[in-house]
Amino acid sequence: MYPESLKNLIESFKLLPGIGEKTAERLAFFIINEDEEKTSFFADSIKKAKEKIKKCSICNGITDKDVCDICSNNLRNKNVLCVVEDPKSIFLFEKIGTYNGDYHVIDGLISPLDGIDPDDIGLEKLVKRIQKEKYNEIIIAVKPSIEGETTALYIKKIIEGMKIKVTRIASGIPLGTDIEYIDSMTLERALNDRKEIE
Amino acid sequence: MYPESLKNLIESFKLLPGIGEKTAERLAFFIINEDEEKTSFFADSIKKAKEKIKKCSICNGITDKDVCDICSNNLRNKNVLCVVEDPKSIFLFEKIGTYNGDYHVIDGLISPLDGIDPDDIGLEKLVKRIQKEKYNEIIIAVKPSIEGETTALYIKKIIEGMKIKVTRIASGIPLGTDIEYIDSMTLERALNDRKEIE
Repeated sequence: MYPESLKNLIESFKLLPGIGEKTAERLAFFIINEDEEKTSFFADSIKKAKEKIKKCSICNGITDKDVCDICSNNLRNKNVLCVVEDPKSIFLFEKIGTYNGDYHVIDGLISPLDGIDPDDIGLEKLVKRIQKEKYNEIIIAVKPSIEGETTALYIKKIIEGMKIKVTRIASGIPLGTDIEYIDSMTLERALNDRKEIE
Repeated sequence: MYPESLKNLIESFKLLPGIGEKTAERLAFFIINEDEEKTSFFADSIKKAKEKIKKCSICNGITDKDVCDICSNNLRNKNVLCVVEDPKSIFLFEKIGTYNGDYHVIDGLISPLDGIDPDDIGLEKLVKRIQKEKYNEIIIAVKPSIEGETTALYIKKIIEGMKIKVTRIASGIPLGTDIEYIDSMTLERALNDRKEIE
């Protein structure tokens, strides 16, 4: 029914996560009514991002260079390493602006039920890096879930002999959230991890 | 903070309606993790749709030809013309599959408050087409709003002398909707336009 080229554009939008038939149609009609300049920029951005963006050879983060701006920045604190499960997390922490150490991206979390073993998430590269650098703290900043806990404990275990402090970002109640909306596991954690008011 | 090419991709997604910063970031990260084949198809679809899609020279509908498939199809009923305000409406009516006449897209609705006069929405082309063809019914299928009513009445008025029936698609309560969720203007219309049960 739709002309071929419009149909292809709708199908393209449907590839995106969270975008169904109706939204894809709406976006496709938006594109064909938009200035040629802007839609060209859009199409080129997709191609260029795919071409240029790659993994940092040191931390696995996202970069358009061989080594990312964070790894190559010697003004940062090279004594702390923050382990994340997703390259996007790096940008989230950087937005806060208070952390100034290194990052390392592991390739997901250990999940025996899904057949993801410690060997599958690139821990060897992480350990080699820790052995080579002079970190005195490793901060584990992965999702607080069974898989996240398992992964954190596993990392703690494999670098046990190295006399490096291993920490975990805090779990608990998000700021500004009513306690009634919090699940009981989070509430239990928040209670257990209570801090003395000084 | 983000590499240049990733930043451009995020900015591109933010051009789309209903897509904010967070969703744009999510979609951009999805793209850079997606197969090159699919992202190429996406980028090419945008360019090709922009290149090929144009207005049908007769009805102003969307097509990749000079005259669209509907206008050039002589098996359709050339005695009825359905006037819509948006090329997308044509596809919506075609999906139903029961209407078999012609369409004509006007360029929006008359809205004196927004400075949109009858001259601005391409009614001259519509009238010329009606004068040339042998329609015995014009169906006005625009949004039921003050602007829609004004536009419908105006079209009725300018073709008054031509002895052509002018109709308006029905307004009322959508099927399956609880009456308690219906605004009072729609309810009033539904009451006024009640039909005898036969």
